Amino acid sequence: MKLAMLYEGKAKKVYKTDQPNELLIDYKDDATAFNAEKKAVLAGKGQLNNDISALIFEKLTKAGVKNHFIRKLSDTEQLVSAVTIIPLEVIVRNVAAGSMAKRLGIEEGKPLERTIIEFCYKRDDLGDPLVTEDHIFELGLATTEELQAIRQQASKVNDVLSQYFDDLGIQLIDFKLEFGRKQENGELILADEVSPDTCRLWDKVTGEKLDKDVFRRDLGDLPTTYRKLLERLGAAQ
Amino acid sequence: MKLAMLYEGKAKKVYKTDQPNELLIDYKDDATAFNAEKKAVLAGKGQLNNDISALIFEKLTKAGVKNHFIRKLSDTEQLVSAVTIIPLEVIVRNVAAGSMAKRLGIEEGKPLERTIIEFCYKRDDLGDPLVTEDHIFELGLATTEELQAIRQQASKVNDVLSQYFDDLGIQLIDFKLEFGRKQENGELILADEVSPDTCRLWDKVTGEKLDKDVFRRDLGDLPTTYRKLLERLGAAQ
Repeated sequence: MKLAMLYEGKAKKVYKTDQPNELLIDYKDDATAFNAEKKAVLAGKGQLNNDISALIFEKLTKAGVKNHFIRKLSDTEQLVSAVTIIPLEVIVRNVAAGSMAKRLGIEEGKPLERTIIEFCYKRDDLGDPLVTEDHIFELGLATTEELQAIRQQASKVNDVLSQYFDDLGIQLIDFKLEFGRKQENGELILADEVSPDTCRLWDKVTGEKLDKDVFRRDLGDLPTTYRKLLERLGAAQ
Repeated sequence: MKLAMLYEGKAKKVYKTDQPNELLIDYKDDATAFNAEKKAVLAGKGQLNNDISALIFEKLTKAGVKNHFIRKLSDTEQLVSAVTIIPLEVIVRNVAAGSMAKRLGIEEGKPLERTIIEFCYKRDDLGDPLVTEDHIFELGLATTEELQAIRQQASKVNDVLSQYFDDLGIQLIDFKLEFGRKQENGELILADEVSPDTCRLWDKVTGEKLDKDVFRRDLGDLPTTYRKLLERLGAAQ
């Protein structure tokens, strides 16, 4: 049962349910980029992200990655375990792109020698700044043990999803994860969403972008792109 | 003997000498801040930084920190060992201030739980971005061993200088170091300068700033401030 809204984010609303340890996530049609400087409402996007994120969480659950997803409830809604989100964006990169390529002057598309994990402090008012481990400890955002567990789980997600997408002819360039501590026992699990809003996905043959860069960079119609991606993922089930 | 100019930086010029492994550094009167968006020529600054940097390098040499300083040559010039600079700004912080306080939303002046060492990629065109160790390795800026040695030496510099300034009633808030590989044998040593241009120094009693923030923040006359600092350092010799 959907109760009071707890939180409205840029792309999702989170509601209480009648179960204390379960929340309901409603995916919105809103697309935002560049810390919400660019915005649009794109009909169908919420449903597509709900579908894609559900498929990916199911894949991760099968592979043994603990996460908050319980089940889909409707076209745009899913039921998840209640967690306290750790305010870190965990960014996993296989190929230089986006903010990292720009910040460091690396050509977009350059494969990285080794997978890079970055952490950004989730603070819209500060523009989600990149932080080092020292900063994370100073800010008290996570313990040493939690950060180690986050790195391990993020690497595992990368292994599982890189293979998953590769089998579909898609290269996983980079992605953003968020983790949380389960309300009932503090256990660290993957939370938030895993979708083309939070991943860069390039067709291995054509290089076509199958992610939110289509919106960020005005490369075409975002729902059409996400629908194409969902069809490719759906075919793999 | 001063030969061809090799490089002109924001605050220094570097010249060849007739010795292949020795360079001459000439401190300029130029003050810059915010990646050279703010600029001024302040008479006497070059001489003051040459004097202060020489005193500090001598202090570090006595404490066993290998560095490029050989001797003062004139009011604004010093002789140093030739090194290839590692393009990293190594920032050591004891108290939150400046860019870190601003980026992370920490109040300036808050003592840090533990000393923090940050690395920024020396690239004016990119605004010297903060980098993680992963970025440093990806960019090939330093090896794992070099980075470990840099951390160790930076910590030692912090220990030595924190005590040195503390004895003079001054708190070492943070500072920036640069390291280089000696031209003759590749040995990693401290290079560049250590001066109120590259340190934040606050009077322990009054909180008065004795560093370049006086220029950055229009708090007074910079050469007057640096002269006061030099007098306090000189009295300690």
